[in-house]
Amino acid sequence: MIDMNRRGLVIAAGSAITASAVGLPAMAATAGRKLGYAIVGLGGYGLGIIIPQFKNCEHSKLVALVSGDPAKAKRVAAEYGVPESGIYDYKNFDSIKDNPEIDIVYVCLPVSMHAEYTIRAAQAGKHVMCEKPMAVSSKECEAMIAACKKAGKKLMIGYRCHFEAHNLEAIRLARSGAIGKLRYFRSEHGFTAGNPNAWRLKKAMSGGGSLMDIGIYALNAARYMTGEEPIAVYAKETTDRNDPRFKEVEDMIEFQLEFPSGVIGSCMSMYSANQNHILLMGDKGRIDLEPGTRYDGNKLWVGQDRSKQVDPPPGPGKTQWAAQLDHLSQCIVNNKEPIVAGEEGLRDIRIVEAIYRSAREQKRIVLA
Amino acid sequence: MIDMNRRGLVIAAGSAITASAVGLPAMAATAGRKLGYAIVGLGGYGLGIIIPQFKNCEHSKLVALVSGDPAKAKRVAAEYGVPESGIYDYKNFDSIKDNPEIDIVYVCLPVSMHAEYTIRAAQAGKHVMCEKPMAVSSKECEAMIAACKKAGKKLMIGYRCHFEAHNLEAIRLARSGAIGKLRYFRSEHGFTAGNPNAWRLKKAMSGGGSLMDIGIYALNAARYMTGEEPIAVYAKETTDRNDPRFKEVEDMIEFQLEFPSGVIGSCMSMYSANQNHILLMGDKGRIDLEPGTRYDGNKLWVGQDRSKQVDPPPGPGKTQWAAQLDHLSQCIVNNKEPIVAGEEGLRDIRIVEAIYRSAREQKRIVLA
Repeated sequence: MIDMNRRGLVIAAGSAITASAVGLPAMAATAGRKLGYAIVGLGGYGLGIIIPQFKNCEHSKLVALVSGDPAKAKRVAAEYGVPESGIYDYKNFDSIKDNPEIDIVYVCLPVSMHAEYTIRAAQAGKHVMCEKPMAVSSKECEAMIAACKKAGKKLMIGYRCHFEAHNLEAIRLARSGAIGKLRYFRSEHGFTAGNPNAWRLKKAMSGGGSLMDIGIYALNAARYMTGEEPIAVYAKETTDRNDPRFKEVEDMIEFQLEFPSGVIGSCMSMYSANQNHILLMGDKGRIDLEPGTRYDGNKLWVGQDRSKQVDPPPGPGKTQWAAQLDHLSQCIVNNKEPIVAGEEGLRDIRIVEAIYRSAREQKRIVLA
Repeated sequence: MIDMNRRGLVIAAGSAITASAVGLPAMAATAGRKLGYAIVGLGGYGLGIIIPQFKNCEHSKLVALVSGDPAKAKRVAAEYGVPESGIYDYKNFDSIKDNPEIDIVYVCLPVSMHAEYTIRAAQAGKHVMCEKPMAVSSKECEAMIAACKKAGKKLMIGYRCHFEAHNLEAIRLARSGAIGKLRYFRSEHGFTAGNPNAWRLKKAMSGGGSLMDIGIYALNAARYMTGEEPIAVYAKETTDRNDPRFKEVEDMIEFQLEFPSGVIGSCMSMYSANQNHILLMGDKGRIDLEPGTRYDGNKLWVGQDRSKQVDPPPGPGKTQWAAQLDHLSQCIVNNKEPIVAGEEGLRDIRIVEAIYRSAREQKRIVLA
């Protein structure tokens, strides 16, 4: 869950960093400068979404790129002012340890590569931001956490919605009692998967289908919106295995989450249609977000229906990504744990594993 | 499910009744006149909703009242032009057999009384409209069907939404392929239960909690919207037993339905908040109704989101209730089975029983 108080402190500390940093050795090296990120993977997300965000950051900058495509890396480096010395490939990746400009490695690779590059980054003495889902198994997540801990480095998972204004306002409203006692949570997330050869449709690279890729938004939202951890799950999967896209991974999965307070969560993810919705139902009203977790254009309503739209106050950064990137930088400077540390990713993956098991065995799975 | 073709025929036959009835003995007695209804139970629904609807009917009229409150019955009779000879109480109810003005008995009583009064009405030689849910158990439903069959009388369940314009248009759109292949159905239905002493909160009278009362709309809609019968259910109940309203019946229940085509249905009902929503998700778009099953003010959208609202063509009657009342009258005149006969009510109750069992046993229940 999001710890709003902790977030509040982190953000507040961030804005007062120069003053508060005085005299602390861990900060001495970083205070007053932007922390340097190396982006690993110049795919759609790393190149298309993350790299253009550094211009919106206050505490983070782009200093290195890791890519298997030298021409692409050179072009991107030139466009974003990354020096040639900041260009790496997957063979010489470990030599990042010798580049003091790199504080943080952001792993934007297919899921199956998250563990390896997170662990190698930690071993190279770098902090790590790893894209979600954290890894293809909870075992890998545990190894990633252990490696970062052993290296004394921070590990944060790229849960951008924890920094998104509509989601933060929805959490605030829910906690404030605006809809009474929360009883029910629902979320559908989906998009139309296209190319059957995309890595996300190859189980060895993705770890799973829509649940891993887009359903993780519904699952994570169920946890941060309720502020609770589920105690049991039940799931049903429906996939047309004759569809060339779904030879290896699931299309649609519907999963129910039981929370300790009695709140029931009902979530669905799919690869066969666009859907992006979050609903919180209390005994005095409801909070609706649709779309709820998009890059932009999210909408929020509170009340008995959708007649009262809420314009949330600005989020903690210029954009959700800038806030996310700067959060890790600030956590490093202030030696705080990120609000979405590796353990947050691990929790989701453990639940994902239980959901898959429930769907396979057609029974309720109690979470440990 | 709604058989649209059958409905089409029935409705069409209805408007041409005088011509087509010639020479058929069953019709000779009724053709050209409105069939007479006796309303049993002058509670909120019978008195507040049904009785005022006869003015909108083409083929049905109010001819009798059955009530335990003589003064109330007399007052209502006077207001709606029912003769004194049409006033009955629960003791002399069986003497309706001697009143040829009464063709149909409409049972608007607490659920626990549905079976008794349906069976007694059939034994008195009357056709029966019975309010939903049909009865407190599938055993009772079976007895009601058997009694009506034995008496050679029609039995119809008061599923008004099968006659409601927005629902009919949503079915038509779904069947027409407007949203591609249907993948997912969802519906939440709820309202805030008030008085802890209301009959609906007494298990002996209601047979169950929100699922029986308002969840039946979600369940029935799952069947008529998909046009399929579920093959398995899974359910989770959450009720605060310290709430004086919920000493005997459940508050919230979430249930998942598996359909043969692979469509997943996800439904929720509750007594602790207002909620009235139906969603059909296809691989090319979605159909949204919110509210979807209200007395009025229902809204329908079709497309990728809620940007395109649809104004449905008029339903089969002036109102959903007038169409419902006239449908049974016309089925009697034309000797057709109602589109929502007793078997439709029985199907829902069998699924309701499986849902309760699933919630109790915390496991998936395969439907016979």
